[in-house]
Formats: sequence, C-alpha cells, structure tokens
Amino acid sequence: MMRTKAAVAVEAGKPLEVMEVNLEGPMAGEVLVEIKATGLCHTDEFTRSGDDPEGIFPVILGHEGAGVVVELGEGVTSLEVGDHVIPLYTPECRECEYCLNPKTNLCQSIRSTQGQGLLPDGSTRFSMLDGTPIHHYMGCSTFANHTVVPEIALAKVRKDAPFDKICYIGCGVTTGIGAVINTAKVEIGSRGVVFGLGGIGLNVIQGLRMAGADQIVGVDLNDSKIEMATKFGMTDFVNPSKVEGDLVAHLVELTNGGADYTFDATGNVGVMRTALEAAHKGWGESIIIGVAPAGAEISTRPFQLVTGRSWRGTAFGGASGRTDVPKIVDWYMDGKIEIDPMITHKLTLDDINHGFDLMHEGKSIRAVVEF
Amino acid sequence: MMRTKAAVAVEAGKPLEVMEVNLEGPMAGEVLVEIKATGLCHTDEFTRSGDDPEGIFPVILGHEGAGVVVELGEGVTSLEVGDHVIPLYTPECRECEYCLNPKTNLCQSIRSTQGQGLLPDGSTRFSMLDGTPIHHYMGCSTFANHTVVPEIALAKVRKDAPFDKICYIGCGVTTGIGAVINTAKVEIGSRGVVFGLGGIGLNVIQGLRMAGADQIVGVDLNDSKIEMATKFGMTDFVNPSKVEGDLVAHLVELTNGGADYTFDATGNVGVMRTALEAAHKGWGESIIIGVAPAGAEISTRPFQLVTGRSWRGTAFGGASGRTDVPKIVDWYMDGKIEIDPMITHKLTLDDINHGFDLMHEGKSIRAVVEF
Repeated sequence: MMRTKAAVAVEAGKPLEVMEVNLEGPMAGEVLVEIKATGLCHTDEFTRSGDDPEGIFPVILGHEGAGVVVELGEGVTSLEVGDHVIPLYTPECRECEYCLNPKTNLCQSIRSTQGQGLLPDGSTRFSMLDGTPIHHYMGCSTFANHTVVPEIALAKVRKDAPFDKICYIGCGVTTGIGAVINTAKVEIGSRGVVFGLGGIGLNVIQGLRMAGADQIVGVDLNDSKIEMATKFGMTDFVNPSKVEGDLVAHLVELTNGGADYTFDATGNVGVMRTALEAAHKGWGESIIIGVAPAGAEISTRPFQLVTGRSWRGTAFGGASGRTDVPKIVDWYMDGKIEIDPMITHKLTLDDINHGFDLMHEGKSIRAVVEF
Repeated sequence: MMRTKAAVAVEAGKPLEVMEVNLEGPMAGEVLVEIKATGLCHTDEFTRSGDDPEGIFPVILGHEGAGVVVELGEGVTSLEVGDHVIPLYTPECRECEYCLNPKTNLCQSIRSTQGQGLLPDGSTRFSMLDGTPIHHYMGCSTFANHTVVPEIALAKVRKDAPFDKICYIGCGVTTGIGAVINTAKVEIGSRGVVFGLGGIGLNVIQGLRMAGADQIVGVDLNDSKIEMATKFGMTDFVNPSKVEGDLVAHLVELTNGGADYTFDATGNVGVMRTALEAAHKGWGESIIIGVAPAGAEISTRPFQLVTGRSWRGTAFGGASGRTDVPKIVDWYMDGKIEIDPMITHKLTLDDINHGFDLMHEGKSIRAVVEF
C-alpha cells in the first residue's frame, strides 16, 4: 500500500478534489504505473458532470495518459520495470473472441468489471485515506500520479517519446486517425468530410491526409477553427451557419456527388444524419465517432442505405491498442503525424478543474496535466 | 410500329386493364423483346396501388421478366435476334462512374429518364390506340407481350433455361441471394437472421445456405412459412408473437451473442431496427432489403453503431445485371439454387389482377404470368 496524489471526482457535478489517496500494489496480471502526463477528454467531463448515466462515484477519472512501469504484479511477462506505457481503455487480451476477430477491436475480456469501475478481480486499488473505496475509470484512472492497470491494458512504447505529447495517443489521436485508417480504411484519392473540428476532428483530418485523401472538407460552426484545421490538411471549410439552403445539398455539390467517407466528431445526432446523407450514393460510408447524449437517437430514411450508403461507428479508432498504439507513437516521432500544436494548454494536477473550464470555453484543443 | 397485348395501369389504385397497345420499334441502342414470362412483385403493386409517390400513369408495370430478342435497334452489338434475355431495372452500362466502381451496382447512365417512365431519348415506345403515350416502368414494362428495352438493360442468358422460372431472377432471386453474396459477402460459418419469409426472405435463406452459413434463423409472424423456409435452408424459426420478453434479446441469445449478418426483407422500419440490434456487437452487419413506406424513417441509438454494428442496404442484391444474372441462371440450371417451389401460381395476362389478390392474401410466393 502506498499513497499518491490524485484528482478525485467525489460526487457527480462537483469539481474534482485533489487529494492524497491510498493505492494498493498490483495484483496478479496488474501493473503499477507512474503517470507522467494525462490529457483531459470530453468523456471525462461527460462523467464528471453527471451526464453519464453509467457514472459511478467516487472515482478517479482520466483515460488519456502516459507513464512508466514501477512494479509488476505476479505473472506479468510482457512488461518490465522502467518501460514506458500508455494505458488503454480498450484492452487487447489477444485471447478473447473479439481479439481473435480481425473485424473488431472491442476486447471483452475485462469488460464487465471495467464497466463497474473495478479491476478484473472485482475490487478497487484506490481508496480514500478513511478507507472508502474509490472507483477506477475506463480501466485507466490517469488523473492520479500513480495508478494500477491490467497488463493487457498497457501499450509499451519507445522511451524517447515525450509523455506530454504521446499521452494524447491514449485517446484522441488514435480515435481520430484510427477512424480513418482502421474503421473506414480510406483509400488514396478519396474525398472526406469531417463534422466538428475539435481534437478528434483534427485527428480525423490528419488521418485523411496520411491516407492520401484528395479532398478534406471540415465542417464547424466556428470560423476560428479554420487556421488549425488547414494546418492539419483541411482543403475546404464549411460553416453551416453561412450556407444558404440545404447543408447536405451544399456538401454533395462541393464533393462532386457526395463524400466517399464522412465522419461525425460532434456527438450531435442531427449532425450524424447530415453526415450520412452527405456520403456518396452507391458507396459512401459515414462513421460515427462522437458520443451522443443518453437516450438520443439517430434516424434517416432507409432509402439512404438502400441506395448504397453505409452507417457505421468506431470506438478507440478501431485500434487494437497494444499492437497499434506503439506504431502511432512511431508515426509521431517520425513526423508522419503532428501532435504538438494540439496540446494547447499545460496544467498541474492542482489546476485540473481549470482544464474543464478551458474545454467549456472552447479555448483548448487539448489541455494536458503534467505530474 | 406494331401492336401487342399489355396490362396497363391506367390510373393509380385501379385494377390493370388488359388491352392492345401500340409499340414502336427499337431506336438506337434499344432492343425489341418478346416477353415469355413475368413475375408479379410487391414493387409493381406498390406503384399500382398509388402508394408510390413517384408513380406515373398510364404505365405498363412489370420488371421481373424473361423473353427473346426480336429486333435490334441501330448500333446494338452485344445481342442477336433470338437471344434469350432478362430485362434489368438496374442496367449495367460498364462506362459510368458507378459501373467503374466495384463498390456499387447502381449504374446511373439512364437513371433520370428511367425514373420518369421514359426510354433514354426521353420518349415512350408504348401508346394507347388513341395515341396517348403509356409510360415505361423501371425500364422494363414486362406486363406486355412485347417491350422495348435499352441494350445495357438486358442480360443475355442460356437458351435452355425455362422462362417461367428464370424470370424470377430478374428481381426476387437476385435481390435475396445477391444481398448475401454481393452486399454482405457472408463468410462460411457465419450466423444469419432473416426477417420476413416471403419471396425475398426465402432467397436470402438460400443465399446464406449457398454461402456456407452455420446458422440461418428465419423470423416471421406466420408459422405457415416454416415448411418452405426449412426446405430452403432455415435452421431456426422465431415467431415474434410467441416470444416472451424482448425479441432482440431472444435473437442475441439464440445466435450466441448476435448474428454476423441480419437481413430485413419486410420493409417495416421497426423490424429494420430490430434487425440492426440483433446483429453481433463488434462486427455484425445489418442489410436493409425491404422498401419502406414513403416518409418512414429508421432509428436507433448511435451506441449500436459505435459498438461495431454496421447498417447498410442493398438494391437488386448488389448485382451488376449483365454480368451476374447469367451466372445466377447457371446456378439454377446446375441445381445450386432452387426456384421451382417458389413459383406457386401461374396465370395468363388476362388474369393478372388475380395475381395481386393472391399477393394480398399471402397465398403466393411468386405468381408468374406466362404469355
């Protein structure tokens, strides 16, 4: 048992409370990781705010981290003390029915306990100093200086990669780029439309550039997104509030009949419909990345599908984390993708609530907490 | 100009009127075909009844025929007089952007005129004896003893195949089997669920059998469908009216976690949702085949897609008709697929309205008019 510093979501809707917490050592198959940096993602805020109907409290949020292996639990063979790692909220056991099916990345081996905020043995390693258990979050809980993570949920990455940048590969970068590369499997010369130019949308854009797309249309209500999105590869910008008439018709015309691939990175179900309908007749695919509010539903006329559009979704960019995340770190280190301009704010753990303010104000792409 | 006998839909919602009509000879790129047999499809009835908002009258319906080439228009090179042919409501020009894209079969080369009930030059070949033009239907108009069809909308088939069976390949057989083989690309060992065990559903079932599916679940409100569906390969039957509790949960359990592929052959948007949600998490694909009522919409929670299900559709079974239809005729002649048991009624053209009665009474799988 050790003590570490963490930002605890004590109650839904309240600011996080930074405090000392107890952390038990890793059990069999688990690894103690010293977190060096963690991003703040909208999903953390979705749960913190109380909007997530499956939120459990108290909990240590955070799922976009990077750190160093400190201690190995019994039977851990794929990692060593001192390895640099990125925790994975979608693990990769390489043994379950899902891992063995190349069509999906949704490893189910520890799904049920993870969904309950527990480690695979059904308990938590974190507790308040008074002994009250604190739940894990998405199997990661990176808003803590130290955390315990199952071995199958850690991607080993090269040691020369900077933690304050590659932590973003733990969620946003992989989600956006992976949606293009793993889920859509975009071909060279394709036309793509990206709805929502936040952190995920920018990564979809650079994924499209990497995949060799000929046209990359960004759609956002905020013109201030143009500069950054252009830097990442956007070729055309559409502000729906400035389009006269039907947005779908405008996008179909702009893309010469509809896009080969469209991506929703907004979580708005109305936008998801627009994204589907802006896909090309005959072969256009629309990929849902954004997380919709609880209970919200997508809808369209089935004619849209019968005439050849496909409606799909992606989680963690279709990436099998232990296999794919180290490659994405290499891409970053080799200059194939950019991350630095997206890390717009650096914070200490004590200032973590300010990061959520920046998110709400639309001022940050990614705020990163460094320990 | 010749005269031929046809069943004319003079007005929406009225019975067809069998009469002599004028038929002009084929213009450049067109072919005069003597129709030997034609099936009656729900789509014909959708238009006849007036439910089709795009219906144009007067019109000669019918799009599921087979016949013999009688005369070639100028420049026709791929067919000869005496060839046996199946008219194609989805043509295959082999030159347009759609034909050159292997992801789609939706040839657009004559789409706009076909949708207006006209041949590609913008006029009709049929007229009443008083000279009133009669519209073409889906580019086929097989409810006539003779019809004129564009060369690119005729599949040349072997001469030993019986017209009264292979006419069904012009729509229902290809739509059902093609949804499995071309659209879903079902793999050996898959589990499939088929909603609606009418003519299309039965062909989906035999498509799944041909593709080597391990489990083929049929879903229908009518137990009388069991015998025929079992004959075509169904392994499990579910009558939703006899399921206690949630139908999706029942189907997921029956298929060990959800089906790899589900098919809607009902046209009911509620069933389409059930079909999607009964597909396996991570990789299940749901294919919409049925035509929904005008204005009806499908809906679901986007979570269904984000967790790996895909929602797709198919038209004419994803088949490129001139290429694929002759192969399906071979499959029939080689005994790889069955058609005979599905042709439940034979009619003369004079009795064609009785065929629609049989359809409404649920007594026929396919009624075929022989000339």
